[in-house]
Amino acid sequence: MHKNFKGIEKTVFGRGSFSQLGEIIAPHRSENNGYMVFIVDNYFKGKELEGRLPVQPEDTVYFIDVDPHEPTTEQIDILRDEILASKGLPSGIIGIGGGAIMDIAKCVSLMVTNEGSSTLYQGLNLIKKPGIYHVGVPTISGTGAEVSMTAVLTGPEKKLGLKCEWTVFNQVVLDPELIATVPRDWWFYVGMDTYIHCIESENGQFNNAYSHAYAEQSMKLCRDIYLGENSGQTAENDDKLMVASLMGGLSLTYSEVGICHAISYGLSKILGMRHCYSNCIAFNHLADYYPEGVAEFKQMVAQHNITLPQGLSKDWTDEQITAMAHVSYKLDHMWNHAVGYDWQEKVTIADIEAIFRRL
Amino acid sequence: MHKNFKGIEKTVFGRGSFSQLGEIIAPHRSENNGYMVFIVDNYFKGKELEGRLPVQPEDTVYFIDVDPHEPTTEQIDILRDEILASKGLPSGIIGIGGGAIMDIAKCVSLMVTNEGSSTLYQGLNLIKKPGIYHVGVPTISGTGAEVSMTAVLTGPEKKLGLKCEWTVFNQVVLDPELIATVPRDWWFYVGMDTYIHCIESENGQFNNAYSHAYAEQSMKLCRDIYLGENSGQTAENDDKLMVASLMGGLSLTYSEVGICHAISYGLSKILGMRHCYSNCIAFNHLADYYPEGVAEFKQMVAQHNITLPQGLSKDWTDEQITAMAHVSYKLDHMWNHAVGYDWQEKVTIADIEAIFRRL
Repeated sequence: MHKNFKGIEKTVFGRGSFSQLGEIIAPHRSENNGYMVFIVDNYFKGKELEGRLPVQPEDTVYFIDVDPHEPTTEQIDILRDEILASKGLPSGIIGIGGGAIMDIAKCVSLMVTNEGSSTLYQGLNLIKKPGIYHVGVPTISGTGAEVSMTAVLTGPEKKLGLKCEWTVFNQVVLDPELIATVPRDWWFYVGMDTYIHCIESENGQFNNAYSHAYAEQSMKLCRDIYLGENSGQTAENDDKLMVASLMGGLSLTYSEVGICHAISYGLSKILGMRHCYSNCIAFNHLADYYPEGVAEFKQMVAQHNITLPQGLSKDWTDEQITAMAHVSYKLDHMWNHAVGYDWQEKVTIADIEAIFRRL
Repeated sequence: MHKNFKGIEKTVFGRGSFSQLGEIIAPHRSENNGYMVFIVDNYFKGKELEGRLPVQPEDTVYFIDVDPHEPTTEQIDILRDEILASKGLPSGIIGIGGGAIMDIAKCVSLMVTNEGSSTLYQGLNLIKKPGIYHVGVPTISGTGAEVSMTAVLTGPEKKLGLKCEWTVFNQVVLDPELIATVPRDWWFYVGMDTYIHCIESENGQFNNAYSHAYAEQSMKLCRDIYLGENSGQTAENDDKLMVASLMGGLSLTYSEVGICHAISYGLSKILGMRHCYSNCIAFNHLADYYPEGVAEFKQMVAQHNITLPQGLSKDWTDEQITAMAHVSYKLDHMWNHAVGYDWQEKVTIADIEAIFRRL
């Protein structure tokens, strides 16, 4: 039984394509209650991009600070209730930001038509009704959130995505100019999310010719961007990173993430660590699972003088480590892919705790 | 102004995935008049695949011989009239075959809801109403028809596609097992369509980071399949070719074909030569436009002992050559891409006739 996956409906790519957003959403303005909701990374509040938002008087704009924590089920439920209470069902949701903002936009687009708390829908195909029109505009590249069938939420019980075909964006606008001003550390961490997606996608039982072709090209682009003689934050590399992120996401769509993401989810759920950063923290110590990938990752870290903290675990309690290991252990699909269907015979909670103690 | 392109809605990839077709189309059977139309390459009549078609008693199956000619506007109009006259508007159209069959399926899905002759709609965004649900199942890989926004038809006046976002398949089923029995010559010609798509996509003003990434990976796969030490018709290469075709098509979607396709369309329109074959005939003599691509193409020709006829033009009349040159000359978008917006200052009808005389 092979996956039947939903793709992005429409894609525009190119420098300056953000200027086309108003025209692109215009035909959808007559849907539902006739207003658009913009969900924008708070970073852009007061910046030039704010003035370029194609906002009409009837629209609502939320600037959201994603720094304090990953998107939560509670946050989505409150935002959904607020939107519906103010002007009813919107015509569409436009998310402008990084992976967190795009996940918020995806979740809200689903939750405005699905009743109850978003905690009810964390998992595969639990959403009951199609959501509304939603658009993703990445302003930092690497998470693959622009193309994925999932929108990851941290809930009281689990960190898990709302995953179904209606999660996928109806439209993405890929304008490399928008990622030009990303701070260097985050340019690195988020780009490494793409690189790690590819390594994990390739190294597991669900890898196949489709996933492999996407991963191979995405990794080639990552090497140009982070290792090549022309590496660094240049216009040409911004173009490449936007494509690499998309391709890494498409590789994953047809394969699966692995151990790094399982560990990273533990770090985010229990310590509130941001996803791309926690991926880097974890991947750095997974050479026994991904020897070539981790070796190349370390070259990239060195080339860009990135400092990844060591010895973090000495400040964690045994309870925290056990809790993180349990979060990881529950991510059955990741371990299945990376280790095999018999992974529970090979990997114990104690083994996973030992990985956390390395960090 | 950047293109905003429509992607395939849903994709299933993998060996044996054809078995999922019945389940995939089932939810759509209640649409319109409740029956499906299968359009199948006549090659499969009486073969094992015929017995595997998920046909219900109410469905209609057409086996179409695509050998005599490329799909024509007249053929589409007759088929559309026949379908509507028999049981009214179908629930969906399923095309199972090569590029010609997939183009027929795409066109019929549009023409059952758009009145008049298909000649009225040859061009960009001329179709007025969305078509019906349609599924593409390639049984030979390389044309990219499974992913493209166009469905090429030869009409009384022009060879040109019905090109709009509704042309794109709602679903494709990519089962590499289906291409295992393609005759070797056609495996070569059709695969070369992908290779030529990439060369043309890359060499022109509309090339960009998105198109380039897809072309680069698709060409890498073509080299594995047609040049590498493991080249040839193997299961592994069938997997790769199916992905290469998709990626070559995606590269084109965001860029454009070039001179080889302009010449090839002339050969098909005036002489009825099949598309992929005429591409090979033309590309072989375009080293002055695409030096590296043609050199590598010749290596592939040699490696697989493909015989491409030479001196064809000595059997063509001056009228035929002039007619072919005029067909090519009208393909403004291809020359624009390959030569530049001022191409008419650089390329004359006489120059194009000279290309045909080389063949």
